[in-house]
Amino acid sequence: MPRKLRMGMIGGGLGSFIGDVHRKAAGIDNMIELVCGAFSSTAEKSIASGKALFLPEDRCYGNYEEMILKEKELPEEVRMDFVAIVTPNHMHFHPTKMALEHGFHVVCDKPVTFTLDEAIELETIVKNSGKLFAVTYNYTGYPMVKQARAMVANGDLGNIRKVQVQYLQGWFATAVEQTGHKQAAWRVDPKRSGIGGGLGDIATHAENMITYITGLNIEEIVADLTTFGKGRILDDDGHLLLRLEKGAKAIMSYSQIAVGEENSFAIRVYGDKGSVEWLQEEPNKLFTRWVDEPKRVLTPGGNDLYPEAITHRIPAGHPEGYIEAFATVYKNFATHLMAEIQGKTIDKPDYPSIEEGLKGLKFIYASVESNKNNAKWVKI
Amino acid sequence: MPRKLRMGMIGGGLGSFIGDVHRKAAGIDNMIELVCGAFSSTAEKSIASGKALFLPEDRCYGNYEEMILKEKELPEEVRMDFVAIVTPNHMHFHPTKMALEHGFHVVCDKPVTFTLDEAIELETIVKNSGKLFAVTYNYTGYPMVKQARAMVANGDLGNIRKVQVQYLQGWFATAVEQTGHKQAAWRVDPKRSGIGGGLGDIATHAENMITYITGLNIEEIVADLTTFGKGRILDDDGHLLLRLEKGAKAIMSYSQIAVGEENSFAIRVYGDKGSVEWLQEEPNKLFTRWVDEPKRVLTPGGNDLYPEAITHRIPAGHPEGYIEAFATVYKNFATHLMAEIQGKTIDKPDYPSIEEGLKGLKFIYASVESNKNNAKWVKI
Amino acid sequence: MPRKLRMGMIGGGLGSFIGDVHRKAAGIDNMIELVCGAFSSTAEKSIASGKALFLPEDRCYGNYEEMILKEKELPEEVRMDFVAIVTPNHMHFHPTKMALEHGFHVVCDKPVTFTLDEAIELETIVKNSGKLFAVTYNYTGYPMVKQARAMVANGDLGNIRKVQVQYLQGWFATAVEQTGHKQAAWRVDPKRSGIGGGLGDIATHAENMITYITGLNIEEIVADLTTFGKGRILDDDGHLLLRLEKGAKAIMSYSQIAVGEENSFAIRVYGDKGSVEWLQEEPNKLFTRWVDEPKRVLTPGGNDLYPEAITHRIPAGHPEGYIEAFATVYKNFATHLMAEIQGKTIDKPDYPSIEEGLKGLKFIYASVESNKNNAKWVKI
Amino acid sequence: MPRKLRMGMIGGGLGSFIGDVHRKAAGIDNMIELVCGAFSSTAEKSIASGKALFLPEDRCYGNYEEMILKEKELPEEVRMDFVAIVTPNHMHFHPTKMALEHGFHVVCDKPVTFTLDEAIELETIVKNSGKLFAVTYNYTGYPMVKQARAMVANGDLGNIRKVQVQYLQGWFATAVEQTGHKQAAWRVDPKRSGIGGGLGDIATHAENMITYITGLNIEEIVADLTTFGKGRILDDDGHLLLRLEKGAKAIMSYSQIAVGEENSFAIRVYGDKGSVEWLQEEPNKLFTRWVDEPKRVLTPGGNDLYPEAITHRIPAGHPEGYIEAFATVYKNFATHLMAEIQGKTIDKPDYPSIEEGLKGLKFIYASVESNKNNAKWVKI
Repeated sequence: MPRKLRMGMIGGGLGSFIGDVHRKAAGIDNMIELVCGAFSSTAEKSIASGKALFLPEDRCYGNYEEMILKEKELPEEVRMDFVAIVTPNHMHFHPTKMALEHGFHVVCDKPVTFTLDEAIELETIVKNSGKLFAVTYNYTGYPMVKQARAMVANGDLGNIRKVQVQYLQGWFATAVEQTGHKQAAWRVDPKRSGIGGGLGDIATHAENMITYITGLNIEEIVADLTTFGKGRILDDDGHLLLRLEKGAKAIMSYSQIAVGEENSFAIRVYGDKGSVEWLQEEPNKLFTRWVDEPKRVLTPGGNDLYPEAITHRIPAGHPEGYIEAFATVYKNFATHLMAEIQGKTIDKPDYPSIEEGLKGLKFIYASVESNKNNAKWVKI
Repeated sequence: MPRKLRMGMIGGGLGSFIGDVHRKAAGIDNMIELVCGAFSSTAEKSIASGKALFLPEDRCYGNYEEMILKEKELPEEVRMDFVAIVTPNHMHFHPTKMALEHGFHVVCDKPVTFTLDEAIELETIVKNSGKLFAVTYNYTGYPMVKQARAMVANGDLGNIRKVQVQYLQGWFATAVEQTGHKQAAWRVDPKRSGIGGGLGDIATHAENMITYITGLNIEEIVADLTTFGKGRILDDDGHLLLRLEKGAKAIMSYSQIAVGEENSFAIRVYGDKGSVEWLQEEPNKLFTRWVDEPKRVLTPGGNDLYPEAITHRIPAGHPEGYIEAFATVYKNFATHLMAEIQGKTIDKPDYPSIEEGLKGLKFIYASVESNKNNAKWVKI
Repeated sequence: MPRKLRMGMIGGGLGSFIGDVHRKAAGIDNMIELVCGAFSSTAEKSIASGKALFLPEDRCYGNYEEMILKEKELPEEVRMDFVAIVTPNHMHFHPTKMALEHGFHVVCDKPVTFTLDEAIELETIVKNSGKLFAVTYNYTGYPMVKQARAMVANGDLGNIRKVQVQYLQGWFATAVEQTGHKQAAWRVDPKRSGIGGGLGDIATHAENMITYITGLNIEEIVADLTTFGKGRILDDDGHLLLRLEKGAKAIMSYSQIAVGEENSFAIRVYGDKGSVEWLQEEPNKLFTRWVDEPKRVLTPGGNDLYPEAITHRIPAGHPEGYIEAFATVYKNFATHLMAEIQGKTIDKPDYPSIEEGLKGLKFIYASVESNKNNAKWVKI
Repeated sequence: MPRKLRMGMIGGGLGSFIGDVHRKAAGIDNMIELVCGAFSSTAEKSIASGKALFLPEDRCYGNYEEMILKEKELPEEVRMDFVAIVTPNHMHFHPTKMALEHGFHVVCDKPVTFTLDEAIELETIVKNSGKLFAVTYNYTGYPMVKQARAMVANGDLGNIRKVQVQYLQGWFATAVEQTGHKQAAWRVDPKRSGIGGGLGDIATHAENMITYITGLNIEEIVADLTTFGKGRILDDDGHLLLRLEKGAKAIMSYSQIAVGEENSFAIRVYGDKGSVEWLQEEPNKLFTRWVDEPKRVLTPGGNDLYPEAITHRIPAGHPEGYIEAFATVYKNFATHLMAEIQGKTIDKPDYPSIEEGLKGLKFIYASVESNKNNAKWVKI
């Protein structure tokens, strides 16, 4: 009999941003319930977080090893089906590995691992595990992003020539990491964030989006990175040139110090027949432009959408946002997992997996290498 | 010990729009779980809907009377705490009355009742019941609407002079109700919708918004209503002039036949010091304008917000939408109810209740009366 | 041999807003040169203004009577061809009458006269004079307004059902007329402005636009006018319901006290097949919406325009503004006049004339009458 | 006695785009009159163009040498004061040189010359001539661009860190140059355009804008240029990284093949205190963003502008466009020239001159060099 999926969470204690987002995203479509968690680094804190989430104390664990082992022992009809990993980057690999190896499916935040080597190793682990794995490149969950992708795939834009992408934030314009801001603190710390600062935090979303929409891999890049914040070690701003497959070119600007910008992630894709533009802060519109026809504006639930883009939950004009897009990643993962549980197969599930995660790490490493060499071209 | 609230639902079977919205809105903040429902007019259909929602069969009821009576008999730690009523308008009053009289709290969709008499009666029932009651004027749940309200309340705009509101949809531009569209069908049917068509469906949201933001009651109106769709009985378009308390004036345009409009609900409020503009389709911005200062754009999570407006769940630049705004009505209701259960009191809970519901019906009736008399002035 | 047209100006001395606009509008297309003027109420001031415009002193007159009489005596190849009248409203009728009766063509600012009686009389005078006459309802000069009109005329929108128009300004939100602001002062003075304040200043533009785009006359109106500014006599805000020919309905909101609004003139027209939206502050876009197709955005110089709308002077993406739209009224008038001079005829010249001027006065008078009678319906 | 300035024109015959723009721009402010021209390559065509402009036949010359020599012989009170040069790029240097050396002031379109060597030589010629010289980087004429520049100069944004600029057009997305389109034809022809295609046509505007607003010179660039159009020799698309003075970084994307884009020139400048964003297609707004304050939107004629930005001709809300911005370059040049004629001096005239022109050529040459070397860094 069909049932809700049971989710355990690693990380995401009280005050966490992304943990809360994962929970809301998992909850909105009524397919998943949170049943347990190792929310914090101590049992006490973890229990406090769990209680606030109305979890029973015995399902709040002091660390992820304990959670995985104890849940494993619970009866099948009680124990979690999958783990959501929402810790800082340096804590992605080990919990993921252990969860997979103990038979649990995994949803992991991005970037998929702390180092490139971990990502390479994880690819093998995922494949050998036979378990489902998703990495939450959540911006691919917006209906209008899916429409852009479908338009490219169907040839509406013709051959892709040019991609322009920006991901601009301003919250690091001042020394926010010195004000006790937890989420800022780990992001600027190479021991928790990895070799990329803004690279791993936001540029990898931009990199993933280029490939998701165009279907073209990045072959070569130049990266001119900057660390504007005094005392910082990692990049908080970057300008990149990219060469894609089939002669397409791309350009990327990302920043955490772009004062006053909130989450200005935007992409423009130009083919030889048409073009599309999408802005994350105005996500319910897709601007399309054409050689001989008027500009058109597509909307979720509106006219002329491809089936892949019909993921909006409510009628046209009722805006969906960030949580809903995130939820669509969960929904597609959950749909896949429910099918697996029921012994069914599903065609091309539409959520990012280990391949996308590995590409992200390769991108980060190539960018850092290019930048170290005065922004020379580096092949990916 | 704190626990999630248990919700039962009346209406909202498979294929329902608003029932699904209520469930998602109730689910997003992890405070409420759906435990039972009388989703459809037959037990069979109700069970089918319930199963798709992963409910046990014995909590899927064939009608609301059965649900209320049987839930009443369940142990206190199992039975539903409150009922969400998401049926067409003619089915609001009786389930609400019965639920309240059997000790259940109620969340009801708008307009609160089918007739004005019912609304008047319901006001007394709610007051006598001692139970909580919310009517889902959901657009008041947007953070930037709350900011607008707080700005008026704090005198930032000075004395309110002028309000301009529109609520434009286009889905009834063609004879959609003749195409088997269930949600269209009941809306054009006076036996299920009431004496107002667009009036009850959308204009009452506009009416509620005027009062919610300005704090001013509507005193007098002129309504020039039109039925453009052939064969329709109820209004599908309307133009209204309104006189508010304290000499303020308002103007309203609503339509269900405004071709190509999706859900273009927008309000502009002008005081003698400043003004605000808010557009439902771009809900994460509040445009403010001033005598001697530059225009400003406020955003959820951004700078210069009043505490009442800080209801956004995620950082600035991560758009929230319709479901989140709807969820805020549920969250505020749930917070109030949780406090009640724990014997606590809460100051001025911010969700619409029977007073707002009754005002809505008075508005609908006055509009119809004005229109019948060649759009003469009618006092409310 | 073709030559530039020679323009004389009445009003528009140094510091004038609208006189300067007329001169720039007349000058931009290189078809008209300013040759003389009675710019101010004294010869001295008039000469000062004329000198600043590089006019010879002997073509700067102390009053309009002198100008008309003296220019009449000049050789045909020297004297002005037409007069531009840019005085306050109470000074429109007499100069126009005298100019026409002395053989000069006339371009006059709106509203066409001070009183309705004058407008009625002027209609006869214009017809009898055999001279060309234009009234500068300048907003009709925007390319995208012409496109909207052509789309309606060609049936693209189907039968027109609903029109929504706003014209919002904020410069009278404070007592600006008491600060020595000349342009404000005459506008609030019934002796110079007429019986309408905002009505004659801005609402008549909105009234003209409704008819220009839809081709439908206004048959009946309700007007709820307000005077918010202390000590003012005339309306500075108004809300109107309008019934048009063929069962169409319209609604109008105008204001001079809408704090922070600059010149927010906007119109939406809904037919049974499609709709258009145009905003004066973003004039180079026409938003169109459809039953079964995506929204489209048309631009001057872009794809899919009607010939009537191809009045943009420069390629797509190079914005034209208020002066260019104003200039198009002059250009169409000048083209007509040049044709006349060369003995040619021209089909349906596209500029507003005495008929539009007279409709404007009827609208103002009907609005005032409705308002005096507690906003009852008044036929036009 | 003050008089209008007399302008001669080289190039800009019938059907020319930019010649017409120069004439309108020169005409709008009533300070300049066109008195003569060598509009085309033959006397016959030149006269035809001149007649359409209402010029006497004897002031329409068959080539620029003739014009300069003959005008030189005319009486001082008749002959042209300055020459506007609006020919393709390869025809900038010689007419400019000859005009300056014969005592005429010059306004020249951009890029200032065909080759870098010419630009270097021209710098000396201009300085030695004692004549005024302007190059029409016309986008600097927009009021909100001047406001951005003033804000940087006054330190409002703090130290500049990052600049992001795009200049996107789509008219070369197809092989428009093979369709008999004259303006397209010379632009893709290295013999008339120079070593840069899009570089000289549009990227140099972007380059100039960076320096105009920030006051920072470009020190080093990487350019990855592409020629997408089959059979083309010159670049029609480019992606650049730029390093500016004082550690600031910039990124530039330009294109002539960005399908459906009209003239999407946009710049974002980020300091450590605030940021500004300006879009040429929406030129009457300046978006500003701040660390601790709400976003603000500035408008011409609105509140909080610097004196340098008060160049708008009409009140707030009455849009000005491309022609007006262009006209401001002419106005500032004319104001300077009128002062010179009257023996007055003027402080820092605000129009682009030979220095800006020379920087443009250096930028084009460095970009081409970088691109030839697989996009390596090249110092400017």
